[in-house]
Amino acid sequence: MNYMDLKCSLEDSKVVLLGIPYDGTTSYRAGAKFAPMEIRLNSLIGYEKYSPSLNKDLEDLKLYDAGDIEVSYTSPDVVKEEIKKEIKKYVELNKKLAVLGGEHSISLGVVQALKEKYGEFKIIHFDAHTDLRDEYLGDKYSHACVMRRISEEVGAHNIYQFGIRSGLKGEFDYAKKNMGIISKSFEKLTQIIEANKNEKIYITIDLDVLDPAYMPGTGTPEPDGVTSREFFKAINDLQNLNNIIGFDIVELAPKIDNTQISTATAIKTLREMLLIL
Amino acid sequence: MNYMDLKCSLEDSKVVLLGIPYDGTTSYRAGAKFAPMEIRLNSLIGYEKYSPSLNKDLEDLKLYDAGDIEVSYTSPDVVKEEIKKEIKKYVELNKKLAVLGGEHSISLGVVQALKEKYGEFKIIHFDAHTDLRDEYLGDKYSHACVMRRISEEVGAHNIYQFGIRSGLKGEFDYAKKNMGIISKSFEKLTQIIEANKNEKIYITIDLDVLDPAYMPGTGTPEPDGVTSREFFKAINDLQNLNNIIGFDIVELAPKIDNTQISTATAIKTLREMLLIL
Amino acid sequence: MNYMDLKCSLEDSKVVLLGIPYDGTTSYRAGAKFAPMEIRLNSLIGYEKYSPSLNKDLEDLKLYDAGDIEVSYTSPDVVKEEIKKEIKKYVELNKKLAVLGGEHSISLGVVQALKEKYGEFKIIHFDAHTDLRDEYLGDKYSHACVMRRISEEVGAHNIYQFGIRSGLKGEFDYAKKNMGIISKSFEKLTQIIEANKNEKIYITIDLDVLDPAYMPGTGTPEPDGVTSREFFKAINDLQNLNNIIGFDIVELAPKIDNTQISTATAIKTLREMLLIL
Amino acid sequence: MNYMDLKCSLEDSKVVLLGIPYDGTTSYRAGAKFAPMEIRLNSLIGYEKYSPSLNKDLEDLKLYDAGDIEVSYTSPDVVKEEIKKEIKKYVELNKKLAVLGGEHSISLGVVQALKEKYGEFKIIHFDAHTDLRDEYLGDKYSHACVMRRISEEVGAHNIYQFGIRSGLKGEFDYAKKNMGIISKSFEKLTQIIEANKNEKIYITIDLDVLDPAYMPGTGTPEPDGVTSREFFKAINDLQNLNNIIGFDIVELAPKIDNTQISTATAIKTLREMLLIL
Amino acid sequence: MNYMDLKCSLEDSKVVLLGIPYDGTTSYRAGAKFAPMEIRLNSLIGYEKYSPSLNKDLEDLKLYDAGDIEVSYTSPDVVKEEIKKEIKKYVELNKKLAVLGGEHSISLGVVQALKEKYGEFKIIHFDAHTDLRDEYLGDKYSHACVMRRISEEVGAHNIYQFGIRSGLKGEFDYAKKNMGIISKSFEKLTQIIEANKNEKIYITIDLDVLDPAYMPGTGTPEPDGVTSREFFKAINDLQNLNNIIGFDIVELAPKIDNTQISTATAIKTLREMLLIL
Amino acid sequence: MNYMDLKCSLEDSKVVLLGIPYDGTTSYRAGAKFAPMEIRLNSLIGYEKYSPSLNKDLEDLKLYDAGDIEVSYTSPDVVKEEIKKEIKKYVELNKKLAVLGGEHSISLGVVQALKEKYGEFKIIHFDAHTDLRDEYLGDKYSHACVMRRISEEVGAHNIYQFGIRSGLKGEFDYAKKNMGIISKSFEKLTQIIEANKNEKIYITIDLDVLDPAYMPGTGTPEPDGVTSREFFKAINDLQNLNNIIGFDIVELAPKIDNTQISTATAIKTLREMLLIL
Repeated sequence: MNYMDLKCSLEDSKVVLLGIPYDGTTSYRAGAKFAPMEIRLNSLIGYEKYSPSLNKDLEDLKLYDAGDIEVSYTSPDVVKEEIKKEIKKYVELNKKLAVLGGEHSISLGVVQALKEKYGEFKIIHFDAHTDLRDEYLGDKYSHACVMRRISEEVGAHNIYQFGIRSGLKGEFDYAKKNMGIISKSFEKLTQIIEANKNEKIYITIDLDVLDPAYMPGTGTPEPDGVTSREFFKAINDLQNLNNIIGFDIVELAPKIDNTQISTATAIKTLREMLLIL
Repeated sequence: MNYMDLKCSLEDSKVVLLGIPYDGTTSYRAGAKFAPMEIRLNSLIGYEKYSPSLNKDLEDLKLYDAGDIEVSYTSPDVVKEEIKKEIKKYVELNKKLAVLGGEHSISLGVVQALKEKYGEFKIIHFDAHTDLRDEYLGDKYSHACVMRRISEEVGAHNIYQFGIRSGLKGEFDYAKKNMGIISKSFEKLTQIIEANKNEKIYITIDLDVLDPAYMPGTGTPEPDGVTSREFFKAINDLQNLNNIIGFDIVELAPKIDNTQISTATAIKTLREMLLIL
Repeated sequence: MNYMDLKCSLEDSKVVLLGIPYDGTTSYRAGAKFAPMEIRLNSLIGYEKYSPSLNKDLEDLKLYDAGDIEVSYTSPDVVKEEIKKEIKKYVELNKKLAVLGGEHSISLGVVQALKEKYGEFKIIHFDAHTDLRDEYLGDKYSHACVMRRISEEVGAHNIYQFGIRSGLKGEFDYAKKNMGIISKSFEKLTQIIEANKNEKIYITIDLDVLDPAYMPGTGTPEPDGVTSREFFKAINDLQNLNNIIGFDIVELAPKIDNTQISTATAIKTLREMLLIL
Repeated sequence: MNYMDLKCSLEDSKVVLLGIPYDGTTSYRAGAKFAPMEIRLNSLIGYEKYSPSLNKDLEDLKLYDAGDIEVSYTSPDVVKEEIKKEIKKYVELNKKLAVLGGEHSISLGVVQALKEKYGEFKIIHFDAHTDLRDEYLGDKYSHACVMRRISEEVGAHNIYQFGIRSGLKGEFDYAKKNMGIISKSFEKLTQIIEANKNEKIYITIDLDVLDPAYMPGTGTPEPDGVTSREFFKAINDLQNLNNIIGFDIVELAPKIDNTQISTATAIKTLREMLLIL
Repeated sequence: MNYMDLKCSLEDSKVVLLGIPYDGTTSYRAGAKFAPMEIRLNSLIGYEKYSPSLNKDLEDLKLYDAGDIEVSYTSPDVVKEEIKKEIKKYVELNKKLAVLGGEHSISLGVVQALKEKYGEFKIIHFDAHTDLRDEYLGDKYSHACVMRRISEEVGAHNIYQFGIRSGLKGEFDYAKKNMGIISKSFEKLTQIIEANKNEKIYITIDLDVLDPAYMPGTGTPEPDGVTSREFFKAINDLQNLNNIIGFDIVELAPKIDNTQISTATAIKTLREMLLIL
Repeated sequence: MNYMDLKCSLEDSKVVLLGIPYDGTTSYRAGAKFAPMEIRLNSLIGYEKYSPSLNKDLEDLKLYDAGDIEVSYTSPDVVKEEIKKEIKKYVELNKKLAVLGGEHSISLGVVQALKEKYGEFKIIHFDAHTDLRDEYLGDKYSHACVMRRISEEVGAHNIYQFGIRSGLKGEFDYAKKNMGIISKSFEKLTQIIEANKNEKIYITIDLDVLDPAYMPGTGTPEPDGVTSREFFKAINDLQNLNNIIGFDIVELAPKIDNTQISTATAIKTLREMLLIL
């Protein structure tokens, strides 16, 4: 079962899609592990391959759906290494990456694999939460620490955070001092895009950046978020980036939202992101 | 059980309300067949007859609630004929029509009945989807084809589509060339209303025009839709039309949304639409 | 995505598994179309291939998962022909059939395909409902008529109905006169099995035969059904049949039951049925 | 909207069906007020009028569906008087009563109305709870006190309680000393029926007598209850009573159970009870 | 179990938090009684004490969580007196009040207790509904009458209503004539705040003021409400009031919304309100 | 917030109740971490302290509710040590243990703490699954391995497994050879109880031993389980054990089951278990 029933060989592909069904560090509401398969399954019924706003069609994209990575359910640093190892396979083949979480902690292994290939790059980060703790519930590899860990890989000043509206005072203080930008709104996004037009960019999208009205099916819903209009407008704007090396979409917990509108949003987000690659 | 417990005889009525509990062509999530009864049932508890924004009251409306049409569960063209036959009864009595789906395919029979009475008229169409396919899953009478079929009845240039954000590339190409207007936003709605002030108008409202945050209980939720404020503002604007011959409200699938906010929106939509007739 | 991740080529297989995602005639609660994919998806996580009560393992079964048949969403007699045509492909290869509905109407096309191959055979039918109407909501091919239609193919006296506790008076009168047996309980099942030990047998399992406590996720729940213990005991007893030519499992509507215990029961039913083939 | 679409005039009727949509004293999970309308609504789709186990058909029953009583939402003793007044209308016309709660407190007004007509009668009571408190949360008319209040009307020794498995120690002590019988199982039911064959009997069915597996949609679920088989067998046995003057079915809270199996059970319970009158 | 695990003695506290788990007059969907405990429970997992927009931290607030008031489940005027008596205890100690409903009727007892202490004060009221009926379903103390009763205590001209979009014509007529302001939008809020900067103010927040997309878990959802952005902006603006004597947050019915986004919003509302005290 | 609002000091207590809100190794459906608090919260409303079948009352039990243990969310062996350390505190005070999971992996730390105190003891284990894997998804401390790990502590022959109906062939082979008993039914339970009347016994109850109809809210539902009658009968029988040193109740995942019947069953199980200590 492939996303949107797209069938392209690895060899011919430009983009590789991988699921990472891991949610072992989720402290509040688990279930992000089910996201990749639910996205694939529901994409087959009721959703279109054509994007009217981008005027592009997935039929024209060379996508290899690599299925889900098999991960252990033991300590998160072990899982991180498993992810890194698997991702490297595709990065080494010069494929662009489209990664489906799982929870946000999975991004670290991906970033480390990319770093080995590309050395330096920048990150645009959409999220409700700073994710900048140094440690959380006894764990340095928790989802709540992932951007802190990633900032140690790529440099905090190379990370641009949008939609952020929750965290400890200490995290916000750290962010204001160190991160490229930390912002609740998307106002400065176009400016950041313009400034990094030709930079190598990785994009990490925690779907809880959306207001919970639009994305109830997520681990840690945080009110007062962006609307779906603002969100898809932002994704549209990202097409002005000329050198996106990959992206991930994390923290859909599909079974929490029986109406499945959260899954619908994830499916559309994936389509739009793939079409701007 | 009548909507809002309104009791007016057919003879004295100005408007006839009918339910068409059919969802046989639903390809994704069925359940629109339950909408008319859920709307009636819930209208009796917790919802008001008075509209503050219109400053009008349903108590002052002569509405005959004709209950639900009995439809077969066999091929959709048979169902279409059953609908047409039933609708004609009321159209011939010069009643204005308020129709509750059911899924969107039910609109065709209504339009055909109206055409026999009125000859020419125009249509304002709110929807997330173009519904302009020539055929879908082996069926020319599917919900996904309904506006194509209707355009064959009244002329594509007489149809104004608002809220549209999903479809095949071919459908959008067709629409841009042929339809009166196709638009994702409601921006040009007041202009269209102004231009058609005294025209005979039928209005077909697929509730999935709303963003799924506001209308999760629908067959094919499509993110990035209008807000409820934009939606009810649009309905308010429709009161400037002097010659509405009827309307339908379709694609509420009430059981998908256990919070029942989708049903609440349908109940309010029906009230506001009735009050502008 | 295959059931239990079983991977066997068609050539080497003894059994072929097919999904028929059709629920177009569902009169009450639709959603059986989602069953085959939900069964496959959830079988991959949390369910075992080994049956302790049968002491057999799916690892030892040569199963080819043919995926889902593509069906039209138009009139049910058209769908029936599509099913028949597809099923014949595998029957002609002498494969045993394991079919996942969809709603019960899908069994007719399967039976017709089997009849062309085997001529005569008998049917054991588990269900809450007689399904013996001659016509329902304008349709002779409705799920409510399927056993009547099937009885016209194989002879009513060759059909044994168990678990039946709902229907019209006329249906029960017809059944008592014509069917091989009609029974609310499973008491006489072992006797019927003994008598038909070496007969060619097709088994059709409408999961609503189970009490709704055990199978809430079904189109038409009917209280006062069998327990899961009685049900799995019955399936165990079926292993004494030496010549089962195929079976279907129908009427799981997975999204109705958010606890997913209905899907769990369907997954286990499929495993046990496969292991007794 | 009538139950099962039965249409008989009050004049011609033998039985009157009334809903009492009141749940104002519910201490745990409210929602029983929605039961009568949900029962009527769902009875129209997917449920049969014919009972195979009784071999009787609702078509042959002269039932007048009087709709729902309008009750205040103020103190429960006021509500009780409103119920009593309304019930008396029908009792005085010599109609048998079929009452749908609402929560259990509604039975008291019904019993008081019956007492004025019949003087003495006996009561068979199915419930998980004793409902024998003298006062609960400041209220003598709470659902938790209803059988205590009723025992003051008809005499505790005239009340037979079945299925009881929850209460205070004091309530059980009181019951063992005073009630006709108090029993967790249904074992002695046939004996009680035999002994009261020709007595005037009122039957009050709190649906939580069923194990919550069979009736999750109720205010105060209590595990370790009877199965649906035991329950419907008991109702079947009640047909040996020759002088049932009425019954009520209470404590379905339909919206708690989104699978609607609880509503299905209530619909079937009502049908069977009506057919044994 | 305390909100956010805050532990301050009554003596040292500046603010007292109380739950009033009462929903006995709820006419539509009950369940507000569960709100205080669900808010406390979920505040312990996944929500932060620090508010980035206010740049304040609950750690710095001296809050005594007094738990839930025990209320009777009998007539609402009795309950009102119980509330008043309990509230007075804390008012007399010069504590600021943070009250969690329950349904809106609980505000009256709180206001009466405050009046005995403070004599005159003003009220800012956020709600979808006028709540200005003189009587509702036989009860003058219903949630639908609460602002009418409160206006009799503090004077209608001292009450400012925001977000109002539902009520009877008579209620709106009364409001326009008598209330300090009645407004659907929040436009004039800053002006009202400015004008009452140093007045004693009580704030009553019916969470259904939010559009149901943001707050599905409420008793009487009313479409076309404010967004969460507008709502939290308004709360932010309230920090310009220098003399808030207390507030309540009512009508969260947490179990209606299984996604728990409604509870998340209530938790955040409580935090922001506490931080502006 | 204490279970059933019981308040006894640690000093005076005979039994200590602890929650262990950990579900980090859950491979299928997480959420067992929420069980202890949901059990406490719901025990306060709608459930009784008195057990009619045991004729005992929790009022007479000296229970200290120690709240929830704080656990890390890192590798499960770290968590295990944290549990062990915390449990030892109470064991050393000669308290009997009542432990609420969390998932089943939490039992190992408890058993290790007990072993240090008591040296030898036996275990009665209720479960649907063998839990006898040597390793699962890369982890030796997974819930799927817990009984294997525990057998290494106390000796496999000292463990009696009841209700078991799922596992790998290898697990069943191991169990038949090594465990004290492995049985799907409860038939031999009374015999085992009789034989171990005066032995030191620890009891571990995985609630998925119940058929999913009775316990849908659990991580890995397995059909064909015991009924609630059989289950509570078994617990009743356990009162013949004279030397129970503690017990745990694990794998309630309350949010999966919105009807909350699973939580109701856990609350009752805890009450009955406490009353037989």
